[in-house]
Amino acid sequence: MTNYKLILEYDGTDYHGLQRQPGLPTIQGVLEKALEQVASVESPLYAAGRTDAGVHARGQVVNFFGSLKAPPEKFPAAVNAFLPPDIVVRCCEEAGEGFNARSSAVGREYIYYIHLGDYPSPFHRRFTYYYGGDLDGDKMGRALRAVTGVHDFASFCRREEGRPTVREVHEAEVWRWGEILGVRVKANAFAWMMMRMLCGSLLEVGRGKWSVDYFQQALGGKDNSLSGPALPAQGLVLEKVYY
Amino acid sequence: MTNYKLILEYDGTDYHGLQRQPGLPTIQGVLEKALEQVASVESPLYAAGRTDAGVHARGQVVNFFGSLKAPPEKFPAAVNAFLPPDIVVRCCEEAGEGFNARSSAVGREYIYYIHLGDYPSPFHRRFTYYYGGDLDGDKMGRALRAVTGVHDFASFCRREEGRPTVREVHEAEVWRWGEILGVRVKANAFAWMMMRMLCGSLLEVGRGKWSVDYFQQALGGKDNSLSGPALPAQGLVLEKVYY
Repeated sequence: MTNYKLILEYDGTDYHGLQRQPGLPTIQGVLEKALEQVASVESPLYAAGRTDAGVHARGQVVNFFGSLKAPPEKFPAAVNAFLPPDIVVRCCEEAGEGFNARSSAVGREYIYYIHLGDYPSPFHRRFTYYYGGDLDGDKMGRALRAVTGVHDFASFCRREEGRPTVREVHEAEVWRWGEILGVRVKANAFAWMMMRMLCGSLLEVGRGKWSVDYFQQALGGKDNSLSGPALPAQGLVLEKVYY
Repeated sequence: MTNYKLILEYDGTDYHGLQRQPGLPTIQGVLEKALEQVASVESPLYAAGRTDAGVHARGQVVNFFGSLKAPPEKFPAAVNAFLPPDIVVRCCEEAGEGFNARSSAVGREYIYYIHLGDYPSPFHRRFTYYYGGDLDGDKMGRALRAVTGVHDFASFCRREEGRPTVREVHEAEVWRWGEILGVRVKANAFAWMMMRMLCGSLLEVGRGKWSVDYFQQALGGKDNSLSGPALPAQGLVLEKVYY
């Protein structure tokens, strides 16, 4: 029995999130069914990031114990043959016995994509949130600087039993490329809804409703009634997991 | 009664092409239904490019005679409220009485997008054709140079009663941006399936099966049994129409 690590990319639009839920299409449910065709899986599937309904991934990592019916380098093509085109296994490798996609991860990187255009383009709609106006990206970047380091993100997340709200943010930046504004955050881990509430609050800064100081006070207040509205799932992508 | 010109953007994935067909979802069918809500349309709808099933547009142009229930500058928002998110009216303006989106057009520009990656990415799949290997873009560009000017494209199109195969190509280039290779062609008009058969033939050059000379001989042969296989609709976008 070997421990296998997979890197996944998916378009989360048509799924009820990563975690298996009875009767609903989920990334995990579909992936487990495909894996059964080409591997014998003898453990639960562990995932680095529990992406919510509609959230995408370019670099989700999962692991499981079992054996493959094809060598690891040919395994992605084998399992992809049983997956729909919106979920792809990018690579597969043997991991040490102690490796766990979730608990071994030392960092996760998310980008939230906002489309600033004159109209909601059909070419962008699946992977961005459309904001029909302009945003002050520089001001958003100055506000975002406050989140670097260790903070209690209670203001910018939904409470969840047993899941801490103190997180360490390693890198945080706002960039602009044409009509796309990206908010990139790398942290040891994320609290529930943290990226979407953080970005919803940054949007208030970008559209001039909040000052940079107000954003920083909201973060310090540790109360999620201070947050801006959470942005929709469709703009959020789990880009990379660090080990 | 006024002549109105609309510019449209659409994701053609879920449509059976532009032209109305009974019982099938088409761009024209869906657009006409939405227009009825916010305008009185008193002529057929004329379109610059008859895009086939699965082909997309960033700059399709249509016109119709009638009257609007909202001023032209507010009309796009009004009609978009009745359209699904994969079809968007970008702008609306009054055109002179003699304007016809189809017959007044002096040029159309298409780009065919090929995704060259290690795996068929869910982020690219709707608007690109995935080719799982590398292509020699420079060699494709050299071959493509032969199409500039006036040529009979009988080799690179499907015959259609009453539609000429002689076309004038104004500009043609192959570019590469990261994992995306684009084939851009601007011509006075396009014969049926011309872009997809031209690009399928260029692909034979790019993957080393055809020489640049062979491509040019195929063009000169005026016989579509000489064409490479037509590439699928999903990579093709009508980018712009010139008047």
